[in-house]
Amino acid sequence: MRIAVIGLGGMGSALAERLLDEGHELEVWNRSTERSAPFAPRARVLGDPDAVGADVVVLSLADDASVTAVARPDGRPRAAWTDRLVVNTATVAPATEAELAEAYGDRFVAAPILGAPQAVRTGQARWMVGGPDDAREALTPLWAAFATTTVAGTAPERAAVLKLLSNQMLLAGLAVVAETVRLGRAAGVGDDALTDLLHGSPMLPPGLLNRVDGLVDPEHAGWFATPLGAKDLTHALGLAADGAPFPVTAGARDAYRRVADEGWADADVTAVVELGRRP
Amino acid sequence: MRIAVIGLGGMGSALAERLLDEGHELEVWNRSTERSAPFAPRARVLGDPDAVGADVVVLSLADDASVTAVARPDGRPRAAWTDRLVVNTATVAPATEAELAEAYGDRFVAAPILGAPQAVRTGQARWMVGGPDDAREALTPLWAAFATTTVAGTAPERAAVLKLLSNQMLLAGLAVVAETVRLGRAAGVGDDALTDLLHGSPMLPPGLLNRVDGLVDPEHAGWFATPLGAKDLTHALGLAADGAPFPVTAGARDAYRRVADEGWADADVTAVVELGRRP
Repeated sequence: MRIAVIGLGGMGSALAERLLDEGHELEVWNRSTERSAPFAPRARVLGDPDAVGADVVVLSLADDASVTAVARPDGRPRAAWTDRLVVNTATVAPATEAELAEAYGDRFVAAPILGAPQAVRTGQARWMVGGPDDAREALTPLWAAFATTTVAGTAPERAAVLKLLSNQMLLAGLAVVAETVRLGRAAGVGDDALTDLLHGSPMLPPGLLNRVDGLVDPEHAGWFATPLGAKDLTHALGLAADGAPFPVTAGARDAYRRVADEGWADADVTAVVELGRRP
Repeated sequence: MRIAVIGLGGMGSALAERLLDEGHELEVWNRSTERSAPFAPRARVLGDPDAVGADVVVLSLADDASVTAVARPDGRPRAAWTDRLVVNTATVAPATEAELAEAYGDRFVAAPILGAPQAVRTGQARWMVGGPDDAREALTPLWAAFATTTVAGTAPERAAVLKLLSNQMLLAGLAVVAETVRLGRAAGVGDDALTDLLHGSPMLPPGLLNRVDGLVDPEHAGWFATPLGAKDLTHALGLAADGAPFPVTAGARDAYRRVADEGWADADVTAVVELGRRP
């Protein structure tokens, strides 16, 4: 299948690599060209999103604003993509998916990815797919790039809802464990004992096992930056009517926001463990 | 071993049953006598804590105040227990364990229990043991009642710290999942789909697997009441110096407190999912 990947951040690059490894013919585009250059030998590097020749456009952009700016310039669907299937992989608000679905009609599918870039590269990530049956079926070769695909239903916004619930569990869960580490340190428990406690605890989500070292390590290298954590939790809180109390999720959102403001805006979400260190 | 179990709530009763099943000779005491009556055929029912004849006194009381009232009446160690080993199984503040250790000296061991009453009954719960080496060794037949014993160290308060960290993960983690359920419901996801999502998610702690049905079920039957959840999180927050921000744990404490005030004071901690329903 000939696929255009639009956006080559940590996730987009991993996705492009996986699709190339799976034998797809690829086009790539990124706003800053230094990210597309490494793909020149294996993919066609586009100078403009309008230059897409592929039948399938896969969007891997950071947030709602950048998805909307690229896919709906001037508020309308991009004219050059009117014959393409358009797939959005970013975690955005359900309303943003619904607007894209309105713009592109039955040619639009929401397919947020669950998993880190390394899992994307090795095909172990999961698609969460929401969109019309015909479009989902036509994209079967794309879904085959990952071991697992969950069909959220025919409405793209449903995929966004399930992805947001999943990220709320991930991000609020990580914030819980970060506070466990901070409370333990405050009570004089050393990092080795804390690491043992977390790894031995039935209260640690399996999906956070690979985050324990990142929490304890002051470098906080990673791919999921603290402002993105705050963004996803803001979207998750947006699922509920105004006024309902969500003190834990709201507290976690505040923690990611604040730690980003405190100097960890480029660090991985595990930097939430540093909260309040520079008050 | 001849053991006195002081306090026959959900946990104390389960513990007494387990110790009887393990072949120990038992004495029991409870403030209200209707809870001790069922033990009369198999155990010696005490009319007063001073009547203890056993060598080992195991305390299973609700909170710091009740532990202190029974074990340190008038602020001093109970005179009738001066020749006994005293074991506290309740989750209390480290300072409370330290005060008991000061009162009873090397005859005091903190041994908070990790696990539900059903796990206690079947020996699958875990002791978290902190106290002097000699006392811990003398109590080996007691520890043998459960499959797993973790030695926190020679200081009783260390066991309290590790137990509080464990409960913070449990209670804040449960509050996260409760908000997942509430956000999902607000976004129109049905309870069956939510249950599937949670059971299929790597972000659900294995220790909360058996809590999912309780969250979705409006009855919220269980043994760990919402005010106890608020108490344990208050103790956990007490591990840190005043002023450090712990928005997630504090948010969870507020959630348990508030839902107790809203009418679920006798319900299990899973009732935290009802937060804000009666504003």
